[in-house]
Amino acid sequence: MPSHHVPTLRDVARQAGVSVSTVSNYLRDYPYMSEKTRDRIANAINYLGYVRNEQASSLRSGKTHNITLCVPDLRQPYFGRIAEQIMAAARYRGYSVIVKSSTYSRREELEVLSQMSSHASDGLIFNPVAMTEADVRAFAGDYPLVILGERIFTAPAPHIEIDNTGGARAMVRHLLASGRRKIAVLGGSLEKQATSSRSLRTQGFLDEMHAQGVSVDPSLIIPCSSWTLSEGWWAAKELFESGARPDAIFALNDPLAIGAMSELKVMGVSIPDDVHVVGFDNSDDSEYFNPTLTTVDPHSQEIATRAVDSLISQVYSGVRAPHRHEVVESSLVFRESSPATDAEMTDQNATAGKA
Amino acid sequence: MPSHHVPTLRDVARQAGVSVSTVSNYLRDYPYMSEKTRDRIANAINYLGYVRNEQASSLRSGKTHNITLCVPDLRQPYFGRIAEQIMAAARYRGYSVIVKSSTYSRREELEVLSQMSSHASDGLIFNPVAMTEADVRAFAGDYPLVILGERIFTAPAPHIEIDNTGGARAMVRHLLASGRRKIAVLGGSLEKQATSSRSLRTQGFLDEMHAQGVSVDPSLIIPCSSWTLSEGWWAAKELFESGARPDAIFALNDPLAIGAMSELKVMGVSIPDDVHVVGFDNSDDSEYFNPTLTTVDPHSQEIATRAVDSLISQVYSGVRAPHRHEVVESSLVFRESSPATDAEMTDQNATAGKA
Repeated sequence: MPSHHVPTLRDVARQAGVSVSTVSNYLRDYPYMSEKTRDRIANAINYLGYVRNEQASSLRSGKTHNITLCVPDLRQPYFGRIAEQIMAAARYRGYSVIVKSSTYSRREELEVLSQMSSHASDGLIFNPVAMTEADVRAFAGDYPLVILGERIFTAPAPHIEIDNTGGARAMVRHLLASGRRKIAVLGGSLEKQATSSRSLRTQGFLDEMHAQGVSVDPSLIIPCSSWTLSEGWWAAKELFESGARPDAIFALNDPLAIGAMSELKVMGVSIPDDVHVVGFDNSDDSEYFNPTLTTVDPHSQEIATRAVDSLISQVYSGVRAPHRHEVVESSLVFRESSPATDAEMTDQNATAGKA
Repeated sequence: MPSHHVPTLRDVARQAGVSVSTVSNYLRDYPYMSEKTRDRIANAINYLGYVRNEQASSLRSGKTHNITLCVPDLRQPYFGRIAEQIMAAARYRGYSVIVKSSTYSRREELEVLSQMSSHASDGLIFNPVAMTEADVRAFAGDYPLVILGERIFTAPAPHIEIDNTGGARAMVRHLLASGRRKIAVLGGSLEKQATSSRSLRTQGFLDEMHAQGVSVDPSLIIPCSSWTLSEGWWAAKELFESGARPDAIFALNDPLAIGAMSELKVMGVSIPDDVHVVGFDNSDDSEYFNPTLTTVDPHSQEIATRAVDSLISQVYSGVRAPHRHEVVESSLVFRESSPATDAEMTDQNATAGKA
């Protein structure tokens, strides 16, 4: 190994037999590069002992090539999945992701915002769940920002959201088209104070029932303290033991639905003959439970990709994007627990044919 | 707001009425500080528009106050939990965590290692699952490192591991003490090629059965392609439909155990009267399923804290720690699916009394 001087980018390029800009692309994780070229550059870097000083280079460019992601809890399947998808989308563009968990705390959320002024990362993708409308001035810092989730803020930033009400309305349309009328809602809430997936999905349910002139039994709207398997089991058990006989259960997320189905099976209730069961999230488990679960797919991959693209274009342009509310269209995934009607099958085929 | 000069740390201290080192501690997320002092400093920073140049400051100190964590998949409950715990432990010490997912790919794992030479973070906590013993020279870089997980490497770094074999042996001791003899192992493997939690936990099972002179029926060792709820359902269903009548099921993680219990309930098999069911991981769900699940607690909080402490002490000392293998002691958590024997209860009380 040559030791007379500190190896430069130019030395690596010469050793690998490629251009300096190709080496630079490699170091930036540029995605369009052959395996062979990557290997040649990696070998040259190893042979020469080339070390890039990322900090010095980022101080010159004013960029760290890190973005920060703040979610309330990685242990929730939905947030674990979207974190994975954001990490993959960022990596594809040469960015690393600093992950912060707010643990559902307003204080932590405000602290993540205040830390952004330290320039340790180039921008923030932020899913607040605890801070209030009055906290909106905490968004005053001058850094690229994208907001995810259900809380409504007028912060000067793109806000990308799941189609909570639209997804719920589409699912209720499907249940009514299947001849269902007595629909229980697990995890629902008739309180309207906070903007949350709970209240938005319940609202979608109520809107569609109302639009189709079907009366709602408030005793079938069952709040659940957390949206977990075990809450689904207990809610279904209590519901049936109370003598209620719903002909459908709309669980506001998939773990609640799977928990409920597990308990219905023990009670000898047939799914879907006696009761249709549907969920929300299109989680990994929903595809494999027996019976497989009909659910709303929120298209989280689309949300992740849009968020990263929007953030990085702000980083590169140096211009913060204005407030803009984007709702990513959801779709229904029909499975055994609530099969598509004939009309829905025709619709799906028509849609599929169009694509 | 004064606009005649760029505000300094000293200005913030004067405005807040605290010392410069208190402001500095605040900016480093020093944990021992009153709520009131924090608020005063935060208000002063806002009022003056003070911006710390983290990059310039880290270039001077040679530290980024970021550490990198690489796990195979945040969507797996075990890794989501340990990532949360590592983020909390790092934050307590003023560090942010760059999270990388290797998606179980050897190529991604090697790339994470090669990127560490860019000095974008101060050190790496790394849980490899795909790279091979021959890849060990990829650990040659000069950065602080801590290894987690089951793969055996002679890399010059502390390696902190779950007590896979010890936990499994303790659980088998409990099942045998409960009078169980025909123990099925869900997720087990009699292949010995790779070092994995699968083979280590199976080995613990075999060792303890052998030590106590109880014969093992190889047809009760059931491999599962993934360690999920649905694999647990299918494995339990096929096991009982095959006519096998185990008196205990040792599932090598909790989702497999919960899936199996869900299916046993449908088949009318009584837990624990007919069959004891036990798991491994002490997951959130294990505490809330009906029946609640007896399981091995791997003490992941202890693993996370030790990993962060070991990494940050390497960062501060500037000296890489040598290879050292640490196994974190696990413990059994007795619940309804396989209650403690009288002797075990006495033991637990004795242990509790000691503490």
